[in-house]
Amino acid sequence: MATGDFVDPPHRLRVRYCETDRMGVAHHGSYVAWFEEARTEWLRRRGKTYRQMEDEGALLQVVDFAASYKRPIDYDDEILIFTRVQERTKVAVTLEYRVERADTGGLAATGSTRLACVSRDGRLQRLPPEI
Amino acid sequence: MATGDFVDPPHRLRVRYCETDRMGVAHHGSYVAWFEEARTEWLRRRGKTYRQMEDEGALLQVVDFAASYKRPIDYDDEILIFTRVQERTKVAVTLEYRVERADTGGLAATGSTRLACVSRDGRLQRLPPEI
Amino acid sequence: MATGDFVDPPHRLRVRYCETDRMGVAHHGSYVAWFEEARTEWLRRRGKTYRQMEDEGALLQVVDFAASYKRPIDYDDEILIFTRVQERTKVAVTLEYRVERADTGGLAATGSTRLACVSRDGRLQRLPPEI
Amino acid sequence: MATGDFVDPPHRLRVRYCETDRMGVAHHGSYVAWFEEARTEWLRRRGKTYRQMEDEGALLQVVDFAASYKRPIDYDDEILIFTRVQERTKVAVTLEYRVERADTGGLAATGSTRLACVSRDGRLQRLPPEI
Repeated sequence: MATGDFVDPPHRLRVRYCETDRMGVAHHGSYVAWFEEARTEWLRRRGKTYRQMEDEGALLQVVDFAASYKRPIDYDDEILIFTRVQERTKVAVTLEYRVERADTGGLAATGSTRLACVSRDGRLQRLPPEI
Repeated sequence: MATGDFVDPPHRLRVRYCETDRMGVAHHGSYVAWFEEARTEWLRRRGKTYRQMEDEGALLQVVDFAASYKRPIDYDDEILIFTRVQERTKVAVTLEYRVERADTGGLAATGSTRLACVSRDGRLQRLPPEI
Repeated sequence: MATGDFVDPPHRLRVRYCETDRMGVAHHGSYVAWFEEARTEWLRRRGKTYRQMEDEGALLQVVDFAASYKRPIDYDDEILIFTRVQERTKVAVTLEYRVERADTGGLAATGSTRLACVSRDGRLQRLPPEI
Repeated sequence: MATGDFVDPPHRLRVRYCETDRMGVAHHGSYVAWFEEARTEWLRRRGKTYRQMEDEGALLQVVDFAASYKRPIDYDDEILIFTRVQERTKVAVTLEYRVERADTGGLAATGSTRLACVSRDGRLQRLPPEI
């Protein structure tokens, strides 16, 4: 999975101080929030915000989460998060992420989340057409 | 505010790894979660859990939060959190916290939260009798 | 404390999904990270990043934290965080924050942090000239 | 992977309020902290705390993280986290987790983390004998 495989422009953010830990670099759990933020922006670009989706009763529940950490990143580092669809069914979509340092382009991490579309009462339902 | 001023037994917890930051000690934001956890246990002891309160439509919204940090605490340190009422009105209660190291009893931090009781639609309402 | 009292342009960010809680709005602890991020940008504008300061051995330890919550903000809301100096001594600085909704300009919260400048071994030292 | 495959007693904890999100249940990122806390206790039972390991220069860096979410859990729910070794090499260990509701024993999630043992300067080194 190289950068060229990602059609959408990446989401850019800076590592927060509170996202580091006593090892002196970003905590591995911080990537959960970053993937989520990248996903929010990826969805916005498809014409419907995730907030609208939820308000309309289409919840995207995280069913599987995976991340592989390649190289540590530190507080105040700028990163780029590339997002794309890896697989799609009627009721679920798997998104793939690639995290790069903004300065060197060096690979920091890769990851994926499988999201199932459910109603407020937890029943599986079709993904919105925007996805 | 000395330990003797607190009637209830303290809540005990251990600092999580993810609660530290690159300064090598617990991040000042971690105390928000600790006060909240101590508050949950303090309420449970009064005979009604906060979860029940929310389910019955009595939400305790944090209106003011304050903390003073006296001495850093580190990953895996055990701490005690003492909780008591500082002030109470018909619709709001201010809780006070004192954080001590479990090993030495040394003071780590103090803090307070003012909580207003509101309904699901945000209207002020009377505090439940348990508080 | 009105917006006009803040000389620096505000820091803009969007509320993350993980920053909300079961009350359906941003958790009161999320503001800790937002004030911190605003502070990082406020310092960058003064000519030295906080990361540089730490690398040079000047740590800004949070000694006091306070926040007052005026109106809830929700996932995906855009907010503006204004930052300014409230008080300064040789070794400590108190920063003041004002959080507004980006769309309406409505006040969401105010807050402050007192930061003491310490060395790696915890001794108080003079604030860097940039502050 | 059934409960019987886990030799060690599970780690028990309660879901914190701040660990929920606007979907009304625990956020998928909260499991990162829970696996970490379970790991800390699993290591303590082996005779050396992870804090000691870090102090002695043996850091366990998370290289891979995975979680599968089976059934939502909510604020104040009590959960049990079972931990065991899935695979071990000279320099890395993969731990497996199983999260159950404490009341019903129902499966909430499974997960794993691969941890590489590195020195302060990031070089791979042998795992401590306790692992």
